[in-house]
Amino acid sequence: MSEPSPPGRRANIIGLGLIGGSLAKALTARQWIVSGVDTDLRRVARAREAGLIAANTLDPDAYVTFVAVPVLGVPDAVAAALAATTGFVTDVASVKAGVASRIEHPRFVGGHPMAGSEQDGLDGADADLFEGTVWVLTPTTTTSDDTFAAVAGVASELGAEVVVLGPARHDEVVAVVSHVPHLVAATLMNLADQRSEEHTAMLRLAAGGFRDMTRIAAGHPAIWLDICAENRPAIVGVLDDLLRELRITRDIVDNQQGDGLQALLASARRARTNLPSRVTNAELMAEVRVPIPDRPGAAAEVFGLAAELGVNISDFEVFHSAEGGRGVLIAIIDASQSDLFRGGLLARGFRPGIRALG
Amino acid sequence: MSEPSPPGRRANIIGLGLIGGSLAKALTARQWIVSGVDTDLRRVARAREAGLIAANTLDPDAYVTFVAVPVLGVPDAVAAALAATTGFVTDVASVKAGVASRIEHPRFVGGHPMAGSEQDGLDGADADLFEGTVWVLTPTTTTSDDTFAAVAGVASELGAEVVVLGPARHDEVVAVVSHVPHLVAATLMNLADQRSEEHTAMLRLAAGGFRDMTRIAAGHPAIWLDICAENRPAIVGVLDDLLRELRITRDIVDNQQGDGLQALLASARRARTNLPSRVTNAELMAEVRVPIPDRPGAAAEVFGLAAELGVNISDFEVFHSAEGGRGVLIAIIDASQSDLFRGGLLARGFRPGIRALG
Repeated sequence: MSEPSPPGRRANIIGLGLIGGSLAKALTARQWIVSGVDTDLRRVARAREAGLIAANTLDPDAYVTFVAVPVLGVPDAVAAALAATTGFVTDVASVKAGVASRIEHPRFVGGHPMAGSEQDGLDGADADLFEGTVWVLTPTTTTSDDTFAAVAGVASELGAEVVVLGPARHDEVVAVVSHVPHLVAATLMNLADQRSEEHTAMLRLAAGGFRDMTRIAAGHPAIWLDICAENRPAIVGVLDDLLRELRITRDIVDNQQGDGLQALLASARRARTNLPSRVTNAELMAEVRVPIPDRPGAAAEVFGLAAELGVNISDFEVFHSAEGGRGVLIAIIDASQSDLFRGGLLARGFRPGIRALG
Repeated sequence: MSEPSPPGRRANIIGLGLIGGSLAKALTARQWIVSGVDTDLRRVARAREAGLIAANTLDPDAYVTFVAVPVLGVPDAVAAALAATTGFVTDVASVKAGVASRIEHPRFVGGHPMAGSEQDGLDGADADLFEGTVWVLTPTTTTSDDTFAAVAGVASELGAEVVVLGPARHDEVVAVVSHVPHLVAATLMNLADQRSEEHTAMLRLAAGGFRDMTRIAAGHPAIWLDICAENRPAIVGVLDDLLRELRITRDIVDNQQGDGLQALLASARRARTNLPSRVTNAELMAEVRVPIPDRPGAAAEVFGLAAELGVNISDFEVFHSAEGGRGVLIAIIDASQSDLFRGGLLARGFRPGIRALG
């Protein structure tokens, strides 16, 4: 590998819904030149009028192409983008194993920005949608390091934190933290709504906690039909686990097992209170320099290890040596996690150097 | 009845936790003289230092006494307050049938301000905690009109909207919109936490929707033990319903019944989007004057009817005739609900007069 030429600032976006529109807005705001296409021509016209896209054909030399179509259409759209362009290609769908099994290409890496809102469509597009969010990338053994580093770089530029997971593992995790919670919120909302026919005051008593719990049920049904179809085994598995746990909760309440209920509520409280927050303190950061060998997936492996260890990479850069053959990945992490990360890197055969910042 | 003397601005608060402390703060800020007691003497000392209470003995002539102790201690504390004072007595517990069956007294009305926070104890006390919230009152046939009007008046003064429900009905409603959602949030949080041992990145992917859904699980376990004990039958009943509905959801996903899933998600979305909001437009309000007969519960019946019909009473006042025998209740409602409310009032034998405001 040689020192890459400065990355182009041209991007394609296929599909101008909430995520695609927000990408267009965020990239345009950062002086990228964005080309956007959509099957809905009125939507394309609105995106042009709003200045979100500069052109409505695919730019064959774009640095990166984002495929932001509904999950079931992703493999075909990715294949088309790889055929029509010379740059890197990624997608933003909520389920990843399907596309990973169908697309094996060095210029492709699957992605999933964990951002959304109750809004949908181009009207909800928000240039700051990705700020402070987690953007999962799911490189496989066929993904080149350049592809991974390029797409991770754009995600970072948009303010997201990159987390690397295998495609199947990603799908299991989002079933727990996103897909099943959505179905539970919808089911709970329907239950309250049915009961409200009998108790008219029901929904007026629905205060903060209930509103918080059911907020995601206001999302657009269409994308969830595809998600449930595409991630069915993981979702059904987690729903079965939740049903089992909820039956235990029900029996604890019914049998007045005070100790059991106390333990259940206390562990939930502890876990909720300990949910990782995005607040970091610049004075307590450390810089990790990891020389990476010239083989595909080395940079992605470092990110994958960070995800396994729960180490938060808040910023990073990948440099390739001009003489070729080797490169170095520089990552900024929380100083308190330096030893943990170093141990893991050493165990995987890397030779990291770490220094405290500030 | 004769024209009552101007209400005293002296209140007792028994129990200085989050709700009791917030009541003390809110009333003191409005120039009430507040006496407060608590079994924890350090807490009493802190409340005095912070200026939340003026004295730490019960004022026998206080206009109103709020019992803000944990739900299982409410009946005894209410009985003690009725014996020790000459004024009105109410409580703020989350379950109402138990105290209603044990206390039959004209000076008592059960209450439940639907306010709370993940904070607990005196440190979380907030003078604005009740602003914009729903405050349920659960008068029974033994509650005098004066008691109801007095406590409803204080709740209104603190910025809450008064909704009247029977005690048993209240308990069924809060099982759906509060108690079961709390247990579901805790169970879901624990499930994600257990899975996170296997998938370290799990909780870093827990984005907005998951955080919203599990926020209430950060609440203090202690009060929930009492609530689950006191409202067990309703909670178990709703959990059984939810388990049944969730199994249906699970089967719909597993059997790929797209139409069923679409219907489930669309109805949840519609119900969530239609959740009553607190925004009102002063130009579209109407004033309802309801002459009320001289019998206990007439004013409460008007409020109860409003709750049944889903009519939002945003402000009200009760006047008694100086000659005795009759009074009038003046309520401010949304003008669009005038006909609905008038129909209900006429059907119940009232003779309302309604005029548009503004």
